[in-house]
Amino acid sequence: GICYVGSETLRLWQRTFTSFGVLFLQMGWGDLGVFGEPAKETPNLDQMAAEGMLFLDFYTANPLCSPSRAALLTGRLPVRNGFYTTNAHARNAYTPQDIVGGIQDSELLLPELLKKAGYINKIIGKWHLGHRPQFHPLKHGFDEWFGSPNCHFGPYDNRELPNIPVYRDWEMIGRYYEDFKIDLKTGEANLTQLYLQEALDFISKQQASQQPFFLYWAIDATHAPVYASKQFLGTSQRGLYGDAVREIDDSIGKILRHLQQLGISENTFVFFTSDNGAALISAPKQGGSNGPFLCGKQTTFEGGMREPAIAWWPGHIPAGGVSHQLGNVMDLFTTSLSLAGLQPPSDRQIDGIDLLPVMLQGKLIDRPIFYYRGNEMMAVRVGLYKAHYWTWSNSWEEYGKGTDFCPGQSVSGVTTHTQEEHTYLPLLFHLGRDPGEKFPLSFASEEYQRAMERITGIVQQHKDTLVPGEPQLNVCDKAIMNWSPPGCEKLGKCLKAPESDPKKCSWPH
Amino acid sequence: GICYVGSETLRLWQRTFTSFGVLFLQMGWGDLGVFGEPAKETPNLDQMAAEGMLFLDFYTANPLCSPSRAALLTGRLPVRNGFYTTNAHARNAYTPQDIVGGIQDSELLLPELLKKAGYINKIIGKWHLGHRPQFHPLKHGFDEWFGSPNCHFGPYDNRELPNIPVYRDWEMIGRYYEDFKIDLKTGEANLTQLYLQEALDFISKQQASQQPFFLYWAIDATHAPVYASKQFLGTSQRGLYGDAVREIDDSIGKILRHLQQLGISENTFVFFTSDNGAALISAPKQGGSNGPFLCGKQTTFEGGMREPAIAWWPGHIPAGGVSHQLGNVMDLFTTSLSLAGLQPPSDRQIDGIDLLPVMLQGKLIDRPIFYYRGNEMMAVRVGLYKAHYWTWSNSWEEYGKGTDFCPGQSVSGVTTHTQEEHTYLPLLFHLGRDPGEKFPLSFASEEYQRAMERITGIVQQHKDTLVPGEPQLNVCDKAIMNWSPPGCEKLGKCLKAPESDPKKCSWPH
Repeated sequence: GICYVGSETLRLWQRTFTSFGVLFLQMGWGDLGVFGEPAKETPNLDQMAAEGMLFLDFYTANPLCSPSRAALLTGRLPVRNGFYTTNAHARNAYTPQDIVGGIQDSELLLPELLKKAGYINKIIGKWHLGHRPQFHPLKHGFDEWFGSPNCHFGPYDNRELPNIPVYRDWEMIGRYYEDFKIDLKTGEANLTQLYLQEALDFISKQQASQQPFFLYWAIDATHAPVYASKQFLGTSQRGLYGDAVREIDDSIGKILRHLQQLGISENTFVFFTSDNGAALISAPKQGGSNGPFLCGKQTTFEGGMREPAIAWWPGHIPAGGVSHQLGNVMDLFTTSLSLAGLQPPSDRQIDGIDLLPVMLQGKLIDRPIFYYRGNEMMAVRVGLYKAHYWTWSNSWEEYGKGTDFCPGQSVSGVTTHTQEEHTYLPLLFHLGRDPGEKFPLSFASEEYQRAMERITGIVQQHKDTLVPGEPQLNVCDKAIMNWSPPGCEKLGKCLKAPESDPKKCSWPH
Repeated sequence: GICYVGSETLRLWQRTFTSFGVLFLQMGWGDLGVFGEPAKETPNLDQMAAEGMLFLDFYTANPLCSPSRAALLTGRLPVRNGFYTTNAHARNAYTPQDIVGGIQDSELLLPELLKKAGYINKIIGKWHLGHRPQFHPLKHGFDEWFGSPNCHFGPYDNRELPNIPVYRDWEMIGRYYEDFKIDLKTGEANLTQLYLQEALDFISKQQASQQPFFLYWAIDATHAPVYASKQFLGTSQRGLYGDAVREIDDSIGKILRHLQQLGISENTFVFFTSDNGAALISAPKQGGSNGPFLCGKQTTFEGGMREPAIAWWPGHIPAGGVSHQLGNVMDLFTTSLSLAGLQPPSDRQIDGIDLLPVMLQGKLIDRPIFYYRGNEMMAVRVGLYKAHYWTWSNSWEEYGKGTDFCPGQSVSGVTTHTQEEHTYLPLLFHLGRDPGEKFPLSFASEEYQRAMERITGIVQQHKDTLVPGEPQLNVCDKAIMNWSPPGCEKLGKCLKAPESDPKKCSWPH
């Protein structure tokens, strides 16, 4: 039930529309000053919020990176676009370099569609939708790429595991730790500066050629191993993680100022958000803050999926706006199409909604948020109510090994270490009174009955119409790792792959 | 080592200086939009911060109300001014209506001192420094009072316990639940509106008579039993507690606008803060949020003592300022004296510092924060380090009865249910990297050694020079409750007191 905002002004403006998306890795809701981080070290993001609109109830599609990114670019839940696993129940899965699957040709990605409206599309940073040739971003609508298919884990020995390649467009131009240094001891790496310069250059080029553009700035300095450039090291109260946040904040400021200086800020829509909650398992040195919310990355508690989110579009989105619209990264797909005057695909289920009426006219659109972990709908939010159908932090076994997704937090019967089914009597929280998910409503209360009646119908409809995609994250094979990416010959960086030995991937969480 | 800012401008301005203090009951650090409360329902306080200076590292003097209020008005730690107990080790104590003690004549209160500079002083709301005749606020420097000596607990039967009186100046004008209605079922009470009107009227009167004033607005809508006026009931996402916060926020906005409309905003210094962290024991209906901090009221973790704080003084304090100065409610004593051109008493230890150089010149003053619980220094903060010498949430016995000061939070070895002594090897946290006090530093680390060396010296000096005051919160007696407050005869509201039976007060926490 979303109507497209077809005012004359908008139509006029669309002719010269340019779009710019910012996506952060693993930055938590509570990491920004404007969201209450006590060090308050994000003046540029805080300023962006003051000039734009703050979304307080914005979600990612999954508590883990790859599925969220696939959802952002397809406008569809990971369980539809295939970014999930059926190897075990309710497991988070992603795209390490031995993953066999990736984004399917049958999926329509945002840049593919924007192309039809004359957009030039660039991804800077981590792709994470598969690293095999058929999954290459330039095969899925992007025109340019500077970055990497996988996380910057390493260094590897290039025998058991190859170091992760960094691509420019079709070909690799080097590898992390070899050609793109990351000093794990000091945390020094200049990657954010490279990504920033790429962004500024791309924007300048597009402005000069008067071509609309979509820039997906998918940087990863706040993902372990966390890094920052020399000039930012040691500048934060918060340690290395804070240094990384400060550098990102500084970069955002430079990008926004660049748009203003080029005179295209009023026809560039910028959105800032994150692909999952802060990784508390890595805190405090390598993980951020989810503010008042429960747990972090890997979980379907609010800390795992509620994200910082800011929309910025001077002259259109009212400055200093605050929205309680339930939003999702998948909405950026639909909203971007709407901005470009395009319709979302009608031959498939799209989960994203158009947020333009929210941002431009202050509307509130009633829609649920589904919290998936792998193949299972763990929870759903309807209005201010959140019903948990399954609860799980991680297994006793993993927890016993020191893996804690909720350090210092433990809500009895909620942050469970066994997968607890509540499908017949969901745990219900009121996120207005209890954003930290600490006080489940009494099953016997009238409020519970009333809320669950509504939620049950919504969940039933969702499940009845759900057509799960072919799961892409089931099979792993060492032979398909980044041994010999395109371009490796020129660099003398081709490595010998082991024999193919496809196996079920192991997803412990 | 604080020097008074004696510039000509300041001296000039002091002649017409008026001061206004705002103090909230039990509102947590995380309860304001500007501090990251996800409902973001405090537009007036957020605006106050945008026009003034936000203090991110501001503390109360105690995790409980009475001692903090005594500290605010005397500029001295409760252990010095007598607002503590020695009935047991490290127990929080306050002033219920059977308390025998109260503020001593030997203490010099802020309004007593301001009088010498021609100030007219008013307290609106809860006094809490003792309810017996010798402790009456008008005997300690205030010229006017509208409010109550104790918390608005009740209703009582007037046989076992009398209902708490509400005073105007010297005499009671009625009692809670009898003449000042609080509907415990709906949460409706119009007290904040009464307190607001009192404030507006007082300010108008002072402006008309051109007399400088000190207004201590010590309201209590966010203290259990939480209440709000009819017009605010049901207006918050956060339930009744949020309704109360919204009404307080609205009132603050009205007061600030009133100052502006009267043309005296530029010579009125306004400070907003709270006397203890949000009472998580009462959450979610009757208790607020401490944002990312550990535990709440009653504890010496950050959630119990880190407070929201905003200074506002248009034309003097730079708009949108943010300070990391370690501040304390006791600083309001010294700062207010400084504003009035007065020196703090030199015959006693004053713990408050003058924050004017911080607010007007952006200085940072190196000073520790001491976290006391009753007669024990539980922890100390120096820079970004916080060392715990004792840890305790509450006893197993109280916890077993359902009293939980840290619901959903549990940090092993930190939120202990026995009083744990760490005096020989304090638990050390870095509050920049770890504001939630979840990751103690390794005792073996060089960082630990370096930090503790400095902290040990500061603690030693503090303990060596500490002269504890005569403890006021040891003895309780039912005979001295509010049976027959002054003025009760006129109202026919005098009650018969039982025989005197002084006992040691029982302080379980």
